[in-house]
Amino acid sequence: METEIKDISRLTPKEIQALIRKGKWDKPTAGLALGYAQANLVILPERYAFDFLLFCQRNPKPCPLLEVLEKGVFEPKEMATGADIRTDLPRYRIYKKGSYVKEVEDISEYWASDMVSFLLGCSYSFEFALMEAGIPIRHIEEGKTVPMYISGIPCKKAGGFEGPLVVTMRPIPPDKVVRAVQITTRFSAVHGAPVHVGDPLKIGIRDLGKPDLGDPVRIGPDEVPVYWACGVTPQMALMKNKPDLVITHSPGHLFITDIRNEDLATF
Amino acid sequence: METEIKDISRLTPKEIQALIRKGKWDKPTAGLALGYAQANLVILPERYAFDFLLFCQRNPKPCPLLEVLEKGVFEPKEMATGADIRTDLPRYRIYKKGSYVKEVEDISEYWASDMVSFLLGCSYSFEFALMEAGIPIRHIEEGKTVPMYISGIPCKKAGGFEGPLVVTMRPIPPDKVVRAVQITTRFSAVHGAPVHVGDPLKIGIRDLGKPDLGDPVRIGPDEVPVYWACGVTPQMALMKNKPDLVITHSPGHLFITDIRNEDLATF
Repeated sequence: METEIKDISRLTPKEIQALIRKGKWDKPTAGLALGYAQANLVILPERYAFDFLLFCQRNPKPCPLLEVLEKGVFEPKEMATGADIRTDLPRYRIYKKGSYVKEVEDISEYWASDMVSFLLGCSYSFEFALMEAGIPIRHIEEGKTVPMYISGIPCKKAGGFEGPLVVTMRPIPPDKVVRAVQITTRFSAVHGAPVHVGDPLKIGIRDLGKPDLGDPVRIGPDEVPVYWACGVTPQMALMKNKPDLVITHSPGHLFITDIRNEDLATF
Repeated sequence: METEIKDISRLTPKEIQALIRKGKWDKPTAGLALGYAQANLVILPERYAFDFLLFCQRNPKPCPLLEVLEKGVFEPKEMATGADIRTDLPRYRIYKKGSYVKEVEDISEYWASDMVSFLLGCSYSFEFALMEAGIPIRHIEEGKTVPMYISGIPCKKAGGFEGPLVVTMRPIPPDKVVRAVQITTRFSAVHGAPVHVGDPLKIGIRDLGKPDLGDPVRIGPDEVPVYWACGVTPQMALMKNKPDLVITHSPGHLFITDIRNEDLATF
């Protein structure tokens, strides 16, 4: 696999989608097709689709919709013409009634004609933009998973979907905070501007050293913790509602789109 | 009514909502509660709601959602707590199977528990921002309705909803075009940035002197026609799909929200 790992970082999104479809890549997608947007995936039976779409509409920062596929459609025409979301992600997770069932590399056998699929923007896109601007991303420097915290801010409820806003935190040097806000403001399709800057207690986080998910990272003496809405938010709302069936990407194993991060900027 | 007309321009949104609810104001809402956002209204039976919500999600410039009310809900909690969208607009239009049926001042008798209501942003909000910045709005100067054109740009289809993008045109002095783009970019909740600047033929408009709706306006020799997505777009898509029942605001008779235009700015 070593040669493939070397090769894959140079491949285009289309080539990576094909490789994954053939079962030749089942590992995380971080660092692949740099500059192209990666997407979280949520698949639900039609009867839950309106409420979940409404949940995303009401909570656009944690649930930034890149594309919603109609009932039974598995080709994401806007994000990647010709791709198949049933086979082109490296790993998927199946949940029934809010409980994890199993991880699979292909969901064709779970697919049904009433499935509605949602592709959601992810923070890789705005992190790419921050790094391009010379703003360091601590968890990447430390080779860790971004620290995530269940905040005290409730999402806006929609039908059976509700839950707390989950946030990621990145320590930013004080002279770069304004620039970090400006840069991510342009990327509302991928979580957008921060939800909070500074004191964690103000959003109900007691201890930055103990994230609810991911790894703690070092915060320098002058650095300011900056918080962005996190894609785990809709995952938690989904689990809480216990739908009969939900299929999602496996954490870190995302869908690689044909769309450049920069083309997702809203201005 | 003359005294009421004088009074109403000074009233708050809550006061105007109450006046309309009591049947004391059935005229257009332009110029009322200046600085506060006004909203277009679309009400559909539940069976059309997912597709229409998806149409709005896919076409956010012509269909900027301010609030979507769940099935059977008539209080727009985000936009105006305590208001009732069945009584608090001056005039409504009832359509059955795509055909106009009648205009009414109260839709209580048409209301059913499966109704889903959509409040959409309108251009009054960004026009207010343009005027605050000293950018003249020609149709307002001339006391006319904004000229609207059916462009050659198709909307993205969603279920049974499809149709052309309808645009409004405002002639802008050449030294104000950039500023007009910047200002309206901030207001993505109310149509946002222009869809086109300059040559009408490039978006399939043959004659600016003959708008498809509204009135023609004078375009000065140096002025640049600037085009914004228009709320008539979803109306046309609705009529084309011929749902059993659609209720909308009557043109110009909008819902006055409690939210300031400035609070709708996305940055």
